[in-house]
Amino acid sequence: MTGKHTWAIPEGYIPEGSTGPEPEMESHETVCLLNATDEDATVEITVYFTDRGPIGPYEKTVPAERTRHFRFNEFEDPEPIPTGEDFASVIESDVPVVCQHTRLDSRQAENALLSTIAHPGE
Amino acid sequence: MTGKHTWAIPEGYIPEGSTGPEPEMESHETVCLLNATDEDATVEITVYFTDRGPIGPYEKTVPAERTRHFRFNEFEDPEPIPTGEDFASVIESDVPVVCQHTRLDSRQAENALLSTIAHPGE
Amino acid sequence: MTGKHTWAIPEGYIPEGSTGPEPEMESHETVCLLNATDEDATVEITVYFTDRGPIGPYEKTVPAERTRHFRFNEFEDPEPIPTGEDFASVIESDVPVVCQHTRLDSRQAENALLSTIAHPGE
Amino acid sequence: MTGKHTWAIPEGYIPEGSTGPEPEMESHETVCLLNATDEDATVEITVYFTDRGPIGPYEKTVPAERTRHFRFNEFEDPEPIPTGEDFASVIESDVPVVCQHTRLDSRQAENALLSTIAHPGE
Repeated sequence: MTGKHTWAIPEGYIPEGSTGPEPEMESHETVCLLNATDEDATVEITVYFTDRGPIGPYEKTVPAERTRHFRFNEFEDPEPIPTGEDFASVIESDVPVVCQHTRLDSRQAENALLSTIAHPGE
Repeated sequence: MTGKHTWAIPEGYIPEGSTGPEPEMESHETVCLLNATDEDATVEITVYFTDRGPIGPYEKTVPAERTRHFRFNEFEDPEPIPTGEDFASVIESDVPVVCQHTRLDSRQAENALLSTIAHPGE
Repeated sequence: MTGKHTWAIPEGYIPEGSTGPEPEMESHETVCLLNATDEDATVEITVYFTDRGPIGPYEKTVPAERTRHFRFNEFEDPEPIPTGEDFASVIESDVPVVCQHTRLDSRQAENALLSTIAHPGE
Repeated sequence: MTGKHTWAIPEGYIPEGSTGPEPEMESHETVCLLNATDEDATVEITVYFTDRGPIGPYEKTVPAERTRHFRFNEFEDPEPIPTGEDFASVIESDVPVVCQHTRLDSRQAENALLSTIAHPGE
């Protein structure tokens, strides 16, 4: 199967505010990880900012043959990611995974969506 | 021509509910396959979840020199994919194909769209 | 510079109907080509369907050091592409170009957008 | 870490007009750059048009271990990029970076979004 150990997402932004019922219509910025291997993946996410040093790693687990869609707006340890501020992220995994970036923006009355496969490292 | 035997889509989510006339404005999650070769493609799609084992394969055919846009919300055999739940998918084809992922979300009054080329396997 | 001779876009659909002033808010499906070389590019686009053979090539030119954003809904020769029907496309160029796919869907009152870099051939 | 010296974005268009509070809901076309290396990146952006020669380079800096999300609609030197006109861009950096393209279109009452990882050069 396909997969990479490193992925990068240059775009990141948690919209301030939401419209509609939570949690499904809450504005969110998500990193979707697929671990199609038969080994659990330990994942470390580092978050980069415009004017200060990176924070992290945020440690996550994606069990074997599972997908996990992590919302940056729910990250807490080592610290929450501020809303309304540009960021970027690098995802590193000890087993090969596939990574996709999705945002749901419900600041205005109707929601908007974006998504892209992240950039794979070598 | 270009094409790969394996593709992965880490993002998957069938929105619950729709607004507007069906089927064109029904919320849907689609895997678009292009078979530009001169041989029919037999495709197997495996669907991964957050907290239980994968299901599938869903078997599909894409004839030679045709495109097929399959909606995950219409998958039935071996079982329907639940709405409102995170999933991911792996697409395997016996001839090289190209794969793109698209969602139309019409839960709110105006529709939102996302799309990305899937991640190709080696 | 970067660029490829062949690109594929499995997703294609010209929405039926639009809301808002034309041409900027007319629903459209676009293939954006960048020719950053110093030679004019002759481009041939072949369109694939669900249940009938491909049509084309649609011949286009992208001059040296220029970009052209072609709307599938304005293709006429050899024949227009029907609205409301799934299609896919393959783009072949005699000099290396870069290709991105974008849709603006204004069927409902507010517009929706999708975009992805196309899949490059070998 | 991953990254490339050259990136291309064939799609470019600065919507004319916006709805909602500025700057966060102003229509914008953005190039998001991540420099995960420990060296500052000097970046040159060249912008291509439909019917006239390219302009640039627009010179930007992305410090070591930082991300910068540059809005094409705020480019000023050597000259502003016109709104309502198709363009494309090539991004060249002296250290490896990762590049993503995002548009927020708020011409109509509710905003629309698109995003994709740019096309990496060799």
